[in-house]
Amino acid sequence: MRRVAVLGVGQTVVGEHWDKSLREIGGEAAFAAMRDAGMDRVDSLYVGNMLSPLVDGQNQLGALFADWIGMWHHEAVKLEAACGSGAAAFRAGLMAVASGEVESALVLGVEKMTDKVGHDVTAALATAADADYEVEQGVSFVGLNALIMKRYMHEFGWQHGDFAAFSVNSHANATHNPFARLREKVNAEKFDKSPMIATPINLLDASPIGDGAAAAILVAAEYVTSNPLRPRILVTASASATDTIAVHSRKDPMFLDAAARSAKQCYDMAGVGPEDIDVFELHDAFSIMAALSLEACGFAERGQGVRLALDGDITVGGQVPICTRGGLKARGHPVGATGVYQIVEVVQQLRGECEATQVEHAAIGMAQNIGGSGATVLTHILQAE
Amino acid sequence: MRRVAVLGVGQTVVGEHWDKSLREIGGEAAFAAMRDAGMDRVDSLYVGNMLSPLVDGQNQLGALFADWIGMWHHEAVKLEAACGSGAAAFRAGLMAVASGEVESALVLGVEKMTDKVGHDVTAALATAADADYEVEQGVSFVGLNALIMKRYMHEFGWQHGDFAAFSVNSHANATHNPFARLREKVNAEKFDKSPMIATPINLLDASPIGDGAAAAILVAAEYVTSNPLRPRILVTASASATDTIAVHSRKDPMFLDAAARSAKQCYDMAGVGPEDIDVFELHDAFSIMAALSLEACGFAERGQGVRLALDGDITVGGQVPICTRGGLKARGHPVGATGVYQIVEVVQQLRGECEATQVEHAAIGMAQNIGGSGATVLTHILQAE
Repeated sequence: MRRVAVLGVGQTVVGEHWDKSLREIGGEAAFAAMRDAGMDRVDSLYVGNMLSPLVDGQNQLGALFADWIGMWHHEAVKLEAACGSGAAAFRAGLMAVASGEVESALVLGVEKMTDKVGHDVTAALATAADADYEVEQGVSFVGLNALIMKRYMHEFGWQHGDFAAFSVNSHANATHNPFARLREKVNAEKFDKSPMIATPINLLDASPIGDGAAAAILVAAEYVTSNPLRPRILVTASASATDTIAVHSRKDPMFLDAAARSAKQCYDMAGVGPEDIDVFELHDAFSIMAALSLEACGFAERGQGVRLALDGDITVGGQVPICTRGGLKARGHPVGATGVYQIVEVVQQLRGECEATQVEHAAIGMAQNIGGSGATVLTHILQAE
Repeated sequence: MRRVAVLGVGQTVVGEHWDKSLREIGGEAAFAAMRDAGMDRVDSLYVGNMLSPLVDGQNQLGALFADWIGMWHHEAVKLEAACGSGAAAFRAGLMAVASGEVESALVLGVEKMTDKVGHDVTAALATAADADYEVEQGVSFVGLNALIMKRYMHEFGWQHGDFAAFSVNSHANATHNPFARLREKVNAEKFDKSPMIATPINLLDASPIGDGAAAAILVAAEYVTSNPLRPRILVTASASATDTIAVHSRKDPMFLDAAARSAKQCYDMAGVGPEDIDVFELHDAFSIMAALSLEACGFAERGQGVRLALDGDITVGGQVPICTRGGLKARGHPVGATGVYQIVEVVQQLRGECEATQVEHAAIGMAQNIGGSGATVLTHILQAE
């Protein structure tokens, strides 16, 4: 298969865009990516979205966006893997270009959650879990994550306050990202006083929802040259893996098996290891997920992901900088768009565009997007050259 | 890219399966396809589904089915293109195998519509149309098709009764298909007396919804040999195209532009023309769609698709046999599964397994799956050798 480069990226601010429709938000990000790539035409479109049938009363987003942004007649389709939908769309676009089926692909992650036509958003998000064996029993999505976090604290001896550093880091980084939803700093004291949502997850453990869209343009690497002003950004690895959809079916609910598998495949594919990753945009939907993702991807021993945060290793100057643009926690989590936001942010780091939160000499970046409580996990490695 | 063969197919009866859950229906078809292929392990899974978030309260069907059928850890994702979701999943699986990314793919179209947890099904189906510019105005999905049919009759001088032959043909063929939902014959008189749904579309113009699942196993063609008992079935062409999502935005709402484009691409790819197609499983969600699909794919001049039906050319012994297993009209239309049912049926024809509705010497078959009122159209050509 051919090598593939990310030629352009675009995004909207994550927020409550009551003055903009679903198609307007998506169009904004798509056009931004096309401007960034210097292209006015793309072969095919891959849309990542989770909630539009439920919240916006709209299916068939492939055709809808091909129509709206003027890609008339071109191939277009939507991919859905719950909160992992964005990276699923990215992987589909990547495969289409890599295989030679198309010469260029637009990947668009889009979600409009705050202006609901249909479902309550909490109920809509619960469709990521197992409807028959989890949701039917009354457990919400945050409830499932709370059960995992509680067991993790019990098993490995952590206190709730030990997780504060994840939230503090994400919020600190978001203050420098004009596209982030929550651009204010928090500290350990504020974290401790934050209202409880589902014990032990409090408000500052949880990422906010939001309306938003992010886009990336993929082309065959041979069409892109590197220059002193802008390095060529190659996608050097992509992998997707699954786990049981219901958390209770897992041998060990505190180990993100699919995250470990997809990361391992990516390391092998790119010929790198965790120690080579300069920046890691992980899926901190809840702070427990940040800890588990770090452990599954080989940055910490089992039960020790929290230690990395406590020791400052996850900050921009640290050993494994995560959530450098605010992560899900502070940039915001427009669910089906999140996976593409992560890609956009890795590209920004590899291009050296992140100013106050720029990781020095960032050359290899990883993004990991999680659907459900670890049921679908997609990992990508991008490299500048 | 590598050539790809369909090694196994499976399906469930289309009906009201109140005793079976979404996962049970999908599992039944998936296991049937694996038995048919003689495989107990597949690399990756592509699920086509439109309504499960709305009707079943369930997203993330990729992980759900990978879990349920024992494809633990493997890649799995869902594709959605309204009623074209099944073929969108088939195309994704095809690309994955053709590119060499995986060695085998399971494609599963699945829909459970009759046992709703959430939405009313008519409202859910309307999410295929444009929520902002069509549905918001109060037009339902059948209403949109009725407007197209009315204009077509006016423009080309057809009477409603002229469309009866589509329904009669589909029902006649379905009586021989044990997997069909409506296994009873109808005649022109019954058609004329059928209750009106949305003028001029009556009950026998419209396909019934249903619960159902269909599956296909794709592998690299090099792994499959042809033998006297079972020919090798190659997928020789695949194409996807889009049109405006709102019908009113089209220059000519009576021409399925995306159907014409994707069929043309397939003809070029396979090096064949309409005259070479021995069997054509088209998307007769409404009888007007059967006429328009025949015209778009080059089997009839504009406005003359109905003539083929009236002249008996669409029957099993005719010039272009369509809906040989009952089509959407009588096999039933479990929306996200339909595109895969069509593939299964073409494979059955090419293998010579259709007994009373077997097309003699069928060697080249085409399937065309339509999302919305022609907004997303996927066409595939399969050949026996």
